[in-house]
Amino acid sequence: MVDVTPKEPTHRRAVARCKVFMRPETTAAVANREVKKGDVLAVARVAGIQAAKRTSDMIPLCHPLLVGAVSINFEIGDDYIAVEANVDTVDRTGVEMEALHACATAALTIYDMCKSADRAMVIGDLALWEKTGGRSGVYRRDVVGAPDARGARDASATSTGDTTVSDVSDTVTNVVES
Amino acid sequence: MVDVTPKEPTHRRAVARCKVFMRPETTAAVANREVKKGDVLAVARVAGIQAAKRTSDMIPLCHPLLVGAVSINFEIGDDYIAVEANVDTVDRTGVEMEALHACATAALTIYDMCKSADRAMVIGDLALWEKTGGRSGVYRRDVVGAPDARGARDASATSTGDTTVSDVSDTVTNVVES
Amino acid sequence: MVDVTPKEPTHRRAVARCKVFMRPETTAAVANREVKKGDVLAVARVAGIQAAKRTSDMIPLCHPLLVGAVSINFEIGDDYIAVEANVDTVDRTGVEMEALHACATAALTIYDMCKSADRAMVIGDLALWEKTGGRSGVYRRDVVGAPDARGARDASATSTGDTTVSDVSDTVTNVVES
Amino acid sequence: MVDVTPKEPTHRRAVARCKVFMRPETTAAVANREVKKGDVLAVARVAGIQAAKRTSDMIPLCHPLLVGAVSINFEIGDDYIAVEANVDTVDRTGVEMEALHACATAALTIYDMCKSADRAMVIGDLALWEKTGGRSGVYRRDVVGAPDARGARDASATSTGDTTVSDVSDTVTNVVES
Amino acid sequence: MVDVTPKEPTHRRAVARCKVFMRPETTAAVANREVKKGDVLAVARVAGIQAAKRTSDMIPLCHPLLVGAVSINFEIGDDYIAVEANVDTVDRTGVEMEALHACATAALTIYDMCKSADRAMVIGDLALWEKTGGRSGVYRRDVVGAPDARGARDASATSTGDTTVSDVSDTVTNVVES
Amino acid sequence: MVDVTPKEPTHRRAVARCKVFMRPETTAAVANREVKKGDVLAVARVAGIQAAKRTSDMIPLCHPLLVGAVSINFEIGDDYIAVEANVDTVDRTGVEMEALHACATAALTIYDMCKSADRAMVIGDLALWEKTGGRSGVYRRDVVGAPDARGARDASATSTGDTTVSDVSDTVTNVVES
Repeated sequence: MVDVTPKEPTHRRAVARCKVFMRPETTAAVANREVKKGDVLAVARVAGIQAAKRTSDMIPLCHPLLVGAVSINFEIGDDYIAVEANVDTVDRTGVEMEALHACATAALTIYDMCKSADRAMVIGDLALWEKTGGRSGVYRRDVVGAPDARGARDASATSTGDTTVSDVSDTVTNVVES
Repeated sequence: MVDVTPKEPTHRRAVARCKVFMRPETTAAVANREVKKGDVLAVARVAGIQAAKRTSDMIPLCHPLLVGAVSINFEIGDDYIAVEANVDTVDRTGVEMEALHACATAALTIYDMCKSADRAMVIGDLALWEKTGGRSGVYRRDVVGAPDARGARDASATSTGDTTVSDVSDTVTNVVES
Repeated sequence: MVDVTPKEPTHRRAVARCKVFMRPETTAAVANREVKKGDVLAVARVAGIQAAKRTSDMIPLCHPLLVGAVSINFEIGDDYIAVEANVDTVDRTGVEMEALHACATAALTIYDMCKSADRAMVIGDLALWEKTGGRSGVYRRDVVGAPDARGARDASATSTGDTTVSDVSDTVTNVVES
Repeated sequence: MVDVTPKEPTHRRAVARCKVFMRPETTAAVANREVKKGDVLAVARVAGIQAAKRTSDMIPLCHPLLVGAVSINFEIGDDYIAVEANVDTVDRTGVEMEALHACATAALTIYDMCKSADRAMVIGDLALWEKTGGRSGVYRRDVVGAPDARGARDASATSTGDTTVSDVSDTVTNVVES
Repeated sequence: MVDVTPKEPTHRRAVARCKVFMRPETTAAVANREVKKGDVLAVARVAGIQAAKRTSDMIPLCHPLLVGAVSINFEIGDDYIAVEANVDTVDRTGVEMEALHACATAALTIYDMCKSADRAMVIGDLALWEKTGGRSGVYRRDVVGAPDARGARDASATSTGDTTVSDVSDTVTNVVES
Repeated sequence: MVDVTPKEPTHRRAVARCKVFMRPETTAAVANREVKKGDVLAVARVAGIQAAKRTSDMIPLCHPLLVGAVSINFEIGDDYIAVEANVDTVDRTGVEMEALHACATAALTIYDMCKSADRAMVIGDLALWEKTGGRSGVYRRDVVGAPDARGARDASATSTGDTTVSDVSDTVTNVVES
């Protein structure tokens, strides 16, 4: 583990996103709360929040820190559910892993609750979208043409084509917010 | 939670896979054990195994079960590291979620250990590849042309093109096995 | 810890109940999903299920066991929310503590989500209502006049008077089931 | 989760109480350390302390925080054991849930250790009694006639009548302190 | 992890022991329950039992299993406290690690509770003393002259000389049993 | 638990050490990475780091704190492996228990991975070697002749004789560092 004790606590924030690709019937069942196991997004939100708090338990070299806020947002597309996790803290180290871990766990929970109907779901495009605070300053994921856009292009390669990734970003925040 | 108490314990197995897409310099650093934070794949393997055992802690509607075996394999490609998790148990419910959770956690650990050098990494193609045991019988993910291949095609859409997904499967098992 | 290894695994079940007493405005806010922190009963249900699975982590002399099913039901009264937890397993020891722990944790979650509006809420009447399986046979909590009814009378002493406790039982199962 | 990052860390304290109602023979067995499973209050105290530290693991929307002190006190009455938990921290959020969770877990541990002799025990009167620090200032539970006394009256409704609730408070602190 | 799924569950047992070496004043304070932090052995016993149940959480390649019984015994010597942990299960794998983990955690708890008075305490002689059940049959640690006695001699080398190690064994079981 | 809330957070550090005594064939197998279960020291290092972070989960009266850095070093001797854990934090309480817990867990992991070949291994000499920060100032374990050297002499009594304990200290830091 990197020694973070020489750093001062500062406000830090991270945003991560991913998508769970699934059949249109499955997204419809989630949207209409018809999944037999329960309210998929409500359970996935709790799972994501709990996961953010326990990231250092699961990721060996992650520093423990006190998560100050977590929110999990969802957007239901035609054949995917997009997950966005926002994490804030005031601490000596960043919360990228907390945001990514929350996203992944919410996505796995969606998979778990829908798997009896659609076993072939795929979780993808799990990436850090924004990071502020700390010595390394602000990071924002570029979508097109930027030097860092390789990952983003991989992501868009699996997207359904009818929205750009940055469009999704806006929608994610607005549609099924907690 | 589904009631699993009427079922008899039987041998069950699941295989899940995902990929961490990254810069070629990053895969090279991992392969040459030059990542400053330590031996990336050794730590990721431990993280994956621990995650398999604690799946029901993190995924709310997962049943607790006694994992009987876990193995985590890696394949280092040009611009990705493929992760494969195999989980076995003798229990009343399947281990799909354990395999997926192990895969995701190993991938997140790779991200964590390499993130200072390559923040734009993307985790994708996280899917169930095989499931045996239990009433629903054998499930194997198809790659091309099969009714269930939609997810797989999404997956291959983000692959680097020079291997088919089923080739990867063989390679994964052989290259960096524990 | 009692040694349970000489026992054979058998099907066991337990039902526990409690009530969170609160202002009528608070029950109304929960019922209408107007609590600012989110969907109170959805979050409390997940908390209860997770707690059932982790009972032996929190209660020192509880044996670990594999919970096979958990369901958490709620009934919203005028000035209380009743919580009922049902737990099933096939194991060498009973699930009373799992049911009680699930109940208590769901109730504490309700408290947590409503506390900014109503700090004086009281959790009470937490008791085992039914237990089946195992050598000691069936246990059912009596309401009136039975030798074991002391606890139940305590319970009814705090109920709101317009329903008997056994009425509540039926209602609980039907009103806000998962 | 409410965002607590804009707040400054301050000293905060909370006191919670509950009662485990049981047969007089059972309270006598606890008092005389004759319970077969071990020293009931010693084990319950440890359980309560551990629970205080892990509250955010169990209550989904609770912020993680660093508990700075916990003490668990007991008072053995004729037909109940009263439990009191005091929790202190210097943090951005209060410790009400930590105190309530500690109380509930200590009470459940008492139940667990005595249940083979007295299955009909009831846990009740679990409430916040005091809270200091933070923007909302001091909160103290009133017993009689105050606007906030509804919960307290519910509580006293199940008490055994020979002590007022505020008497219990003093006694609790003095009798079986750790 | 070794694959244990082909094995049948059988009854298995393990006994581990260790010693916490400390000043005579410290053993006296423990024996007389004068340690300021509380009843040292009562807390250490709970810690050991809890640790046995959570061994697979802490030791990465340990299989999860359902501990069926744990007992922790202590013997207070002149300048040491001996700890013995007995663990039983019916499962596909042995409980050596559970017994050793329980022993170590009880010893660390003793250290923690006495450390303000005696920081130079040393924990030693942590070893497996007995193991029964499973394919490899019975293992018993030899004390003198046997091929496997190297570890035992190391152990006796640090003992205080006035008791043989096998004497300790008997005493441990009888003196401060739970 | 001692109340640490009146203290100010300061930088604190602790170093703990122990040894796993084993057959020379076993140390050779570890050194040559020939142990069937995997890379022993890589897994033990992860286990030690994870344990440092979760100390307050396992040791009942330990305060939770945010570990800022952990490093685990190993030295392979002829018939032992020495483990050293260094832990840093900025907090209101010291990290002795974190360092000792990390050491013990890394040692138990070594035992677990080698036990099929050498069941008679003994863990010993687990002690605090250095502690800085906090009101009580600096503590360093003496080796010979000092008033506090009793524990150290116990330790050297089990060492193999060809190095002094303080030599080991230097070697530990250099030989198998992470």
